[in-house]
Amino acid sequence: MFTSANATLDASHVVGWDHQFDVVVVGYGGAGASAAIAAHDAGANVAIFDLASAPGGSTALSSAELYLGGGTRVQQACGYHDTPQAMYDYLMASNGPQADSAKIRAYCDGSVDHFNWLVELGVPFKDSEYQQRAMMALSDDCLLYTGNEKSHPFNQLAPPAPRGHNLQVKGDNGGPLFIGTLAAAIAARGIAQFFDSRALRLVIDHSGDAKRVVGVVFRIDMQEVFVRAERGVVLCAGGFVMNQTMVEQYAPDLLRCTVPVGNPGDTGSGIAMGVAAGGVAINMHEGFVSLPFYPPASTTFGIFINDKCQRFINEDAYHGRVGSALLRQPGERIYLLLNIDDYGDYETRSYLGAPVAGTGECVVELACELQLDSHLLQQCIELYNHGVARGEDRQFHKHSDWLKMLDWPLVALDCTPGRGVHMPYFTLGGLKTAVDGAVLDGSEQPIAGLFAAGRTACGVPRRGDGYCSGISIGDASFSGRVAGRAAANIQ
Amino acid sequence: MFTSANATLDASHVVGWDHQFDVVVVGYGGAGASAAIAAHDAGANVAIFDLASAPGGSTALSSAELYLGGGTRVQQACGYHDTPQAMYDYLMASNGPQADSAKIRAYCDGSVDHFNWLVELGVPFKDSEYQQRAMMALSDDCLLYTGNEKSHPFNQLAPPAPRGHNLQVKGDNGGPLFIGTLAAAIAARGIAQFFDSRALRLVIDHSGDAKRVVGVVFRIDMQEVFVRAERGVVLCAGGFVMNQTMVEQYAPDLLRCTVPVGNPGDTGSGIAMGVAAGGVAINMHEGFVSLPFYPPASTTFGIFINDKCQRFINEDAYHGRVGSALLRQPGERIYLLLNIDDYGDYETRSYLGAPVAGTGECVVELACELQLDSHLLQQCIELYNHGVARGEDRQFHKHSDWLKMLDWPLVALDCTPGRGVHMPYFTLGGLKTAVDGAVLDGSEQPIAGLFAAGRTACGVPRRGDGYCSGISIGDASFSGRVAGRAAANIQ
Repeated sequence: MFTSANATLDASHVVGWDHQFDVVVVGYGGAGASAAIAAHDAGANVAIFDLASAPGGSTALSSAELYLGGGTRVQQACGYHDTPQAMYDYLMASNGPQADSAKIRAYCDGSVDHFNWLVELGVPFKDSEYQQRAMMALSDDCLLYTGNEKSHPFNQLAPPAPRGHNLQVKGDNGGPLFIGTLAAAIAARGIAQFFDSRALRLVIDHSGDAKRVVGVVFRIDMQEVFVRAERGVVLCAGGFVMNQTMVEQYAPDLLRCTVPVGNPGDTGSGIAMGVAAGGVAINMHEGFVSLPFYPPASTTFGIFINDKCQRFINEDAYHGRVGSALLRQPGERIYLLLNIDDYGDYETRSYLGAPVAGTGECVVELACELQLDSHLLQQCIELYNHGVARGEDRQFHKHSDWLKMLDWPLVALDCTPGRGVHMPYFTLGGLKTAVDGAVLDGSEQPIAGLFAAGRTACGVPRRGDGYCSGISIGDASFSGRVAGRAAANIQ
Repeated sequence: MFTSANATLDASHVVGWDHQFDVVVVGYGGAGASAAIAAHDAGANVAIFDLASAPGGSTALSSAELYLGGGTRVQQACGYHDTPQAMYDYLMASNGPQADSAKIRAYCDGSVDHFNWLVELGVPFKDSEYQQRAMMALSDDCLLYTGNEKSHPFNQLAPPAPRGHNLQVKGDNGGPLFIGTLAAAIAARGIAQFFDSRALRLVIDHSGDAKRVVGVVFRIDMQEVFVRAERGVVLCAGGFVMNQTMVEQYAPDLLRCTVPVGNPGDTGSGIAMGVAAGGVAINMHEGFVSLPFYPPASTTFGIFINDKCQRFINEDAYHGRVGSALLRQPGERIYLLLNIDDYGDYETRSYLGAPVAGTGECVVELACELQLDSHLLQQCIELYNHGVARGEDRQFHKHSDWLKMLDWPLVALDCTPGRGVHMPYFTLGGLKTAVDGAVLDGSEQPIAGLFAAGRTACGVPRRGDGYCSGISIGDASFSGRVAGRAAANIQ
């Protein structure tokens, strides 16, 4: 883990406080910025710290889509009738047995209000839709499907609606705009900002009936700086995807992927500080695993197969659901089989990076190039085509919009982990928190004075196979705002 | 978690010690008993405590098979040439990315010696083999295959040998005999034994340069009893399978299974005590999941299919590997398809408890009863039979010994979790420890005076899909012995 963060400091050892605030926010990404603004607006004297030299965290590196719904202004303008209940049903189903129903309820019921809060801060959303099947909108249009809402089995479980809200900015530039907007709001409020400041450990006062977090020790300019937090500390220090030891320890399957998504500060230090104070880290084995096979959308007409020549997913699913399913396959190799036509603009438009493993004018040729059993391969393709002819994929329920005969010649992309394919990943575990962001101990009791939000906490998104784009920044800004408000209100 | 175990007590708060020993062992199952004996034999004054009224823990409830190898007396007598390296290669492969190579190395290199140690204590093993495909030997014969050594892919990765060592006792009665033998050794040594004693928290001395565990607070006869451990405390308090909250939190997929395997004391209290002292719990999401479909061995001639009519495992695999694969299947239902002949003595000999989901004289009839697509089902059966005819299962590599044509009429057993099938499970996470059993903190440093063994630690077995029967008791007794010795040697 992160060595110094594994211990706490007893307040009796603090000779003097260098700074004193009501609320101290550790980490200046989307969660921390939202926490600082909310705490300030609730009347607290706030300071925000980051180990980097500028604001942003992983939020600034992201697309900063936000997964929001229940009837936002943009959803309404685009003619979608979404409800908090539909959104709740979807998020409960997609987060499986780990779903935190209280958090999901609060998130869905508060989603429209959160959208409006962001708009008031100056975050721009255009009342328009981005209709392509894509991971993020590359235009300045706003609304798109960023999860599995329209695909099986979720289309059977909740009324689908697009809930990905892309910022009004061209290209994949939402992150800098989002953070820039929040940073401007922080500056306008005169909130104290400290950069190049590494949080070392929490300071705990054991003198009362119950222990209480009362401050943070930072390292700034090679000095230990003692910062008092009268009301609360909010840990918004990101996840642990950049800590190889922690990933090996908690989520070893993720190491089959290729690109950890986050900023270098995602070392789990916030989680370790919370645990040292008595918090509990949960869901640490789970992660988001992407197989970014679209765009181009035409690849969705293809089929994924394992080396048993079995399909394993409805290919109209979200790329993260496909990635998670891929890691569960028996055998080693994974291929995406495509019509040559649908391969079309793969090379120019794809993020997948999967090399061509083989092409074939007939099944024998392709099977030979892929080192698969030609009989099995033939049967698999025939089975799929049989469903296409019938207009129904009875095996995996891919939507009929994406059913198209596989017709020779075919091309196979090698999607086997470790053989060239691009597989970004990040972690989904963190501190157990109450709905208001209070860090809970092993007895489910809040640790006085300690809050966590964003990826340092275990929030709404909990499963790789149910993840949807925009839920991380949505949850980070929402949970940060909630935690900041709660920290400010403690007297 | 377990409330009181989530805190520690500062030694300065201890007014007086009620008892004083060199080594205090918490938990009197296989690990604790081994630790107590080893610590005593290393010259320490030892006491062993358990919350139950008698020795045993989960070991007494188990078959007490031991997974040992590298050339034990029994292996040699039965004509098997096993080596520590072959055993190491197998355990490394089967424990996947979580494998702890140092622990596996020590376990394999020390396996023959450990076998001899148990024999010296009086644990009886007959120089004979039990040749049936079974979960445990029901005769007094000793040696049997209890893992995936002979099945794909492991038969390609390490020379197979049977390593399950069943005690010389008829029926499934190894557990009581094993514990009885160890308990006799403990009594003969005059080791202090305390029952009906609940460990509440560890006592920590913070007065030195580094903190040190110096004792344990127990609740005995409704009194808090303070027990000093001069040299070390060894936590052998089992796993957390009986703690519903912890399983929900850490390993929610296990709750799809039906029967938690363990004793009522497996509440994770030992893990919680270690974490409260600064230890780290790892591998908490993993568990053993059994689908006990053999005996009768004839069921191995059948095939498992998911509701996509896909096979998903070589059916000659160990029942725990099949169970783990089952939980990874898309869709909901799982069936075991059998020839009527091979169903034969299922009802009288099986532990599986799977109800008959359907029978059929032809594919249309069976598909109708199972609510499967008859075309898919037909293709699946034809595919399998095609391989049988060829004598080679090219898809899943089931060994040719178990290939037999599926011929109408067929019967299908419903192995869907929650629909009657018996699915025992237990957890595989615990405290991170060094090879000598020292509990490690988040910086990989040993916590002075604190050791853990058995299921309270994260030992050799780490994955459900690579589990083998006998590895829990093998690891418990081995790691307990090692930790007891290490605790005794601290001066």
